Amino acid sequence: MSSTTEADAESVLRLVTPSLDLKRHKGQAGKIAVIGGCREYTGAPYFAAISALKIGADLSHVFCTKDAAPVIKSYSPELIVHPVLEESYTISHFSEEERRQVQEKVVGEVEKWMEIFDCLVIGPGLGRDPFLLECVSEIMLLARKFNVPFVVDGDGLFLVTNSIDLVNSYPLAVLTPNVNEYKRLVQKVMNCEVDEENTGDQLRSLAKQIGGVTILRKGKSDLISNGEIVKSVSIYGSPRRCGGQGDILSGSVAVFLSWSQQLISGHESLSENPAILGCIAASGLLRKAASLAFTKHKRSTLTSDIIGCLGESLEDICPAS
Amino acid sequence: MSSTTEADAESVLRLVTPSLDLKRHKGQAGKIAVIGGCREYTGAPYFAAISALKIGADLSHVFCTKDAAPVIKSYSPELIVHPVLEESYTISHFSEEERRQVQEKVVGEVEKWMEIFDCLVIGPGLGRDPFLLECVSEIMLLARKFNVPFVVDGDGLFLVTNSIDLVNSYPLAVLTPNVNEYKRLVQKVMNCEVDEENTGDQLRSLAKQIGGVTILRKGKSDLISNGEIVKSVSIYGSPRRCGGQGDILSGSVAVFLSWSQQLISGHESLSENPAILGCIAASGLLRKAASLAFTKHKRSTLTSDIIGCLGESLEDICPAS
Repeated sequence: MSSTTEADAESVLRLVTPSLDLKRHKGQAGKIAVIGGCREYTGAPYFAAISALKIGADLSHVFCTKDAAPVIKSYSPELIVHPVLEESYTISHFSEEERRQVQEKVVGEVEKWMEIFDCLVIGPGLGRDPFLLECVSEIMLLARKFNVPFVVDGDGLFLVTNSIDLVNSYPLAVLTPNVNEYKRLVQKVMNCEVDEENTGDQLRSLAKQIGGVTILRKGKSDLISNGEIVKSVSIYGSPRRCGGQGDILSGSVAVFLSWSQQLISGHESLSENPAILGCIAASGLLRKAASLAFTKHKRSTLTSDIIGCLGESLEDICPAS
Repeated sequence: MSSTTEADAESVLRLVTPSLDLKRHKGQAGKIAVIGGCREYTGAPYFAAISALKIGADLSHVFCTKDAAPVIKSYSPELIVHPVLEESYTISHFSEEERRQVQEKVVGEVEKWMEIFDCLVIGPGLGRDPFLLECVSEIMLLARKFNVPFVVDGDGLFLVTNSIDLVNSYPLAVLTPNVNEYKRLVQKVMNCEVDEENTGDQLRSLAKQIGGVTILRKGKSDLISNGEIVKSVSIYGSPRRCGGQGDILSGSVAVFLSWSQQLISGHESLSENPAILGCIAASGLLRKAASLAFTKHKRSTLTSDIIGCLGESLEDICPAS
């Protein structure tokens, strides 16, 4: 028996979005970091990082390779971009010992910032370079050590699907697979195929089997589970499927998860799960922004147009004053 | 007994903003230089430099590292960007003698421009590289030799807090610390903690102890002192705390300080302090622009949006014709 219930995404958005206050200072509305961006991909980490700011985070960092950094920086002066990741081709002539030193340096560059971050987004535009993914594995372990929540998307899911221990039993991990990424995750972890008849139950089993991480399965309806409850978000949405919308979602989950954590830590009586709330809020907002962008731009709608509608959509649901 | 009085920021803006005149030529409305921008940070120096232009300066230069230059150039063709600063990693294999030569070259590249500048902004996106900060120390001494005013913000404040002699007793130096930077400054210079009960008096003591430099302490109300008087600016403002607003302020102080100096040098009877006037005007304008941007963009407001409102805000207070 399926127990999936539709979440009231707009109420969740109103619950978790903090009220603005002149007494607050820089950083208190959230400091997010995206781990991603390589020689090949630069748009995805930008979309994730700028979405976080457009929703209301105060600071958004990107940790990417040296090749990707100038391009990501040039998209927007609002981001803080660290050119610290390395791909195999830059160290191909290195000895094992030298490679180990480079890896230590890469991880060290992220470590010195780690404790200031409220949430990481791991994966947008990461690529699949083996050396880079090794470093990112270490960064995930580091985040767990510091108790920093993280959202895993894109090539981060490729990494995690093959090394499920990286996220296993970490309650502050959120995975945001699309149809194909979800399929691989089910095959790898549950050793079976996706059951389209019992999507909710299967999602719950999957999340439980990974030790209670939260999974947001993107689709016509978004489905969210932490191994206990299953929620769906079906409001709004757009028929346009341009690439990059998943990056908006991962950046948004990071912000709303941070805000939910902040909210819950201040209210002992709230028994809600911050990762679940973060996913519901992010899904609801993206679906509304995508729908609004589509009414404005129709077939021409691009991811940047949807990002441009995040503010108006949030304001509509949850006015700033 | 505190003697902090609220400044009439709008009257100050009207007083110091020069009337436009078809007979004037390029440069007369101000030539500003930002010293900042390194491998890691490029947004901050851009925000400071473009803000100066948007307020009405004629020319805005940026002196940054080779890595930062193409990115800052790409943000806007309006800026003149000099890729002259060096970080330690580019000279790590140099001898002591070679490093000294590099430093001389860096400082020389700035020196040949120095006398044309009406004001420098030192610090936005500077980073904390030891070699780079050594060069910037020399640039500060040079500015003092040429009697060029300078505004110190961001990592420039990190440098100055640890080497207070760089600004000590220079009446044309303005420091613009935020809450955390102010705290470190008080600890280092006064050897005590911030006294939130007597903020005005403590700020005046601090400014006096640094030999009468002007300090603009950013906060819910901005507080300004040169060791003699204490002024506050509390009008307008926005609850959004996205990173980068401090860069707008530092670029704005540079322009208004230049204009104030120009005004006062032409009117013997005016006994006002140009640094104090510059801080009041800049604070008032930023607070109005931030407030206007917030009414338009709400939670989605980014620093670029505030910069986009500088012109409209200034025009509203002080029409160009």
